[in-house]
Parts: sequence; structure tokens; C-alpha cells
Amino acid sequence: MHSITYISAQFQTLQDFICQKLEAADGIGKFQEDLWMRAAGGGGRTRTISGEKIEKGGVAFSAVHGPLPDTLVKSMQLEPGNFFATGVSIVLHPESPMAPIIHMNVRYFETSGGRWWFGGGIDLTPHYIVDADARDFHLALKSCCDQFHPDFYSKFKDQADSYFYLPHRKETRGVGGIFYDYLNDSCGLSQAELLNFCLALGRLFPDIYADLLQRAAQRPWGTPEKKWQMLRRGRYVEFNLVWDRGTRFGLETDGRTESILMSMPPGAEWIYNFQPDPEGPESKTLLALKPGIDWINA
Amino acid sequence: MHSITYISAQFQTLQDFICQKLEAADGIGKFQEDLWMRAAGGGGRTRTISGEKIEKGGVAFSAVHGPLPDTLVKSMQLEPGNFFATGVSIVLHPESPMAPIIHMNVRYFETSGGRWWFGGGIDLTPHYIVDADARDFHLALKSCCDQFHPDFYSKFKDQADSYFYLPHRKETRGVGGIFYDYLNDSCGLSQAELLNFCLALGRLFPDIYADLLQRAAQRPWGTPEKKWQMLRRGRYVEFNLVWDRGTRFGLETDGRTESILMSMPPGAEWIYNFQPDPEGPESKTLLALKPGIDWINA
Repeated sequence: MHSITYISAQFQTLQDFICQKLEAADGIGKFQEDLWMRAAGGGGRTRTISGEKIEKGGVAFSAVHGPLPDTLVKSMQLEPGNFFATGVSIVLHPESPMAPIIHMNVRYFETSGGRWWFGGGIDLTPHYIVDADARDFHLALKSCCDQFHPDFYSKFKDQADSYFYLPHRKETRGVGGIFYDYLNDSCGLSQAELLNFCLALGRLFPDIYADLLQRAAQRPWGTPEKKWQMLRRGRYVEFNLVWDRGTRFGLETDGRTESILMSMPPGAEWIYNFQPDPEGPESKTLLALKPGIDWINA
Repeated sequence: MHSITYISAQFQTLQDFICQKLEAADGIGKFQEDLWMRAAGGGGRTRTISGEKIEKGGVAFSAVHGPLPDTLVKSMQLEPGNFFATGVSIVLHPESPMAPIIHMNVRYFETSGGRWWFGGGIDLTPHYIVDADARDFHLALKSCCDQFHPDFYSKFKDQADSYFYLPHRKETRGVGGIFYDYLNDSCGLSQAELLNFCLALGRLFPDIYADLLQRAAQRPWGTPEKKWQMLRRGRYVEFNLVWDRGTRFGLETDGRTESILMSMPPGAEWIYNFQPDPEGPESKTLLALKPGIDWINA
């Protein structure tokens, strides 16, 4: 078993690696760093960027510990005691409406009672869905998953479809990706192998996004596309504040608000009952915001 | 006892009265109306405005009925059966950052088991707090409350301070107002008197806001004030989506999303860890976003 110190050091290194690659992909923006401490134990390193291609982005590392919250003891049937949690969490909002919003998270949780698990995922939220982008994104995730476990991709893809869903809009957040939680050795892989899986995903992430930004750079856009982007960002806000378990848990348990809400877009708009042109690309995107689409073979 | 038909007709007339007054206050904007039906029973009349002084606003009436949701049966210790609910709900976002956002709601709930109660409130969210505006707003509410019950204002003012609060920001939403719920004849007033209290509040509402808009018209503003308004609107979004019980209940129980999210601002912005000039009016406003301020005698 790796120690929590080892795992958090690996995640911290992953944050460095990702930030460096993203700065290169943006070309102009540089990450600003905020160190913070948590009264109950631990702290974090929040990095934010406001660049040329990435309008607003955050790459956060944290490693926190303390007494297990009662709600978690009950919901997870844990022995009361202490917990340790570490992870890297990312949301990037691009300047171009033709590029997608992306989210990634890898995390590790351990209790003093001897329970441990990994969680995480990557999902893509295009303002305008481009089938080839969605396909190649899913192919890259599948290829990474397949190196570790033959069931991971299809299982985690389904879980992403369920998780990144807005019931009040009857829409998925985007084209999905993968999502996993409570992943431990019951899947047949050791703690060290699962850590390697999380790290492999994390290392893959900046290349995936750099490629998507490069593709989007070829696509012209103007005021109507920017307007649509603002409305889609409104949906992103709705998902994060109403449904995202991590965001809600953080806000309800007095987490560090600025780090949690790093995921908010730079701006968002709401128009009452907006209906896009049924013949336009906006409507085409809305029609594809459904769970269960096989993007690889679509 | 008034019938549910009578009460909902009164609320519908109140909606007409308020819309007419608000159109006059705006000078340019006209309400657009959407009628909708609810599959499980009832429906509503959602009216929205996009005017000159009111950038985005909604005045919604609804009257719905159906089987009591299980969650409500449990939380309110009700006899299972049917419910009927009717109300008027309003949020107005002004164009000028020097004018406040305002919210008002009056509602009536009745069960087939014979339980009934009123709920409602008015609260004010200035982007820039003006002490005299906050004082006169509270004076108007107090004067209306005092006509019905000597304890209403102070009790409902405290409840507004508790309710319109963002724990994750350690801020009140604005300068408060009044908030009440589960109000029935145990307070000493009859159902008819409590209905009159709700209607009096509702009729007072457009005059209060017209006066506030008129005051704000004298206050010049430019880009920095608009920027601040966008950030404060971000906080409004956070309150509504994370903490507002009505919004969350509606979204989680498959309510009509467009009517529920009529309260969203036209636009909102987020900047990571934004700190206003400590000497500026923005900081002065932040310092006053605390519960328990006696605005009338401050």
C-alpha cells in the first residue's frame, strides 16, 4: 500500500505537469497560485488562469484531513474516525464558443478505519457538438481505460452519462466522458494500479484539451455563437450549483468557496424560455444532449 | 373559510394589478405571457418583462394540485392525500446597478387533510446599499405588517435575515425584508385576515419598487458599477440554485423549469477570489451584508 503522503505527492506533481502543458497550449496565459490552509486539517494549492484561448480556468490540488463528517459515516457505513482526502480538480472555460468546456478530477479518499477508494472522471461540454471531436475524445479515454481494465471504459462511460445529467432540463451536461467513484481493489486492481490509472488519465488530459483547442481554432465564430456560449454556460452553472455532488458537499460543509466555485464560467446568461432556430446548429446540439449515445461508433 | 378557488382568483387579480403597475414604472417594457398546464394537475400564468429600467423580470402566478409529495408528508407530518397550492412569485433585475434586485412571493397551501397555511415575503438585494433606501423599504414593510399583527414585522424580519443568507459566502443576500411560512390561525388571525395580509403586501410591492427605481434614476453609473452588478448577480444565482428552498424543491420535483428559473439574472459573472478596493463603495456594501441589522434605526 502506498502511503497518503506518497499519493498526495503524486497528485501534486500531476498538477504541476498539467499546468505546464496548459500554459503551453494557451500560449499567453500563466497560472496564478493561491495557497490555503484548512482549519480542521490540511490545505491546498489553487491555480487559476485567464489566458488567450482559456478564458477562465482552474487547476486545484488539495490534501485535507480531519474527523469524518457524520453524514459520510452514515451514507458510506463507515467506522467513525478520521479521513484523509487528496485530489486534483480542473475546469477550463475556453474563449471560443467553438471549443468545449472540459472538466477533470482525480481523487483519493482513505479512512482511519482502513477503507480507501479512488474517484474521478473527465467530461466534455461543447457549446456546439462536433461529432468527430466527441468520438476522438471518447476513443482517447477508452484507450487509456483499456490499458488498465477491459470493463472500465463502458462502465465509467455509463456512469458519466448518469452523473453529468440535468434532470430539470432533461439534458446531459455535454457529450459525457467517464466517471467513477468508490473504486478500490474489489475491481481486481491493487491500490498502486488504481493510482497509476488515475495518474495516466491526468497526464492524458492536457494533450486531449490542447488538441481540442487546436481544432476549434480553425472554426470562425461571431456574436451569435458567443451569445449561445453564454446560455450554455448558464446550464453549466445550473449543473454545478444544483446537481454536482462535489460542489454541493463542499458548499454545505464549509469548504473553501473560492476553490470550489473556481468551476464557474467567467460569465453566463439566462433568457426566459429561449428556443433556438430549429434548423440551426444550436438545435442540433440540444438534440444530442442525451445519455446513452455511443460516440465512438455513432 | 375562503375556498381555494376564491384565494387563487385573488392571487390572479393581484398578478394583474402588479404587472400593470410595473409596466407603468418601467415606462417602455410590456409583459409577455405564457400559459402552462401541469400534467399532475393545475397550471400557471408566467409573465416576463424586458424593459428599460427592468432589464429582466418575471411575475408568475400558479395554482397547482395533486397528490401530496412523500417528502412533504414526512417533513410536515401531514396525512397522505392531496394538496392545493397557489401563489404569486416575482423577481426583478434592474438595468441600473444603482437600483436593487427585488423579490416578492405570496402563497397559500392547503391539504385534503384539512391543514392550510400561507407563506411569503419580500426582500431587497441592492448592488450598492443605500442606507436611506433600506430604511424606507423596511419602514414600508413594518407599516404594512403592523396593520395586521404587532409581532409580524420583527418576527418576519428575523426570519428573512436567516433565510436570505449564503452560508458559503457568510453574507446575507441583501438588506433582507420579511419572510414567513406555515402561517395559519395559530397566530390569532383568521384565514381571511391572513389572506388580506398577503394581498396588502402584494399591492404595496409595485409602489415600493417604483419608488426605488425613481431614486436610482438620479444616480449615475458606468462600467465599474456594471461590472460589480454582474458579480453581485453571480451571488444571486448562487443563493437561488444552492440555498433557496422553493427553487430547489421545484427543480427536484420536476416543476416547470422556465418558470422557476425566471428568477435568474439576464447575465452574471464570476472572477476567482475578487477583492474590491477596501476604500470603495463595493467594500462598504459587503460589510453591511450581515444579518441582524436594524435598518430602520441604523
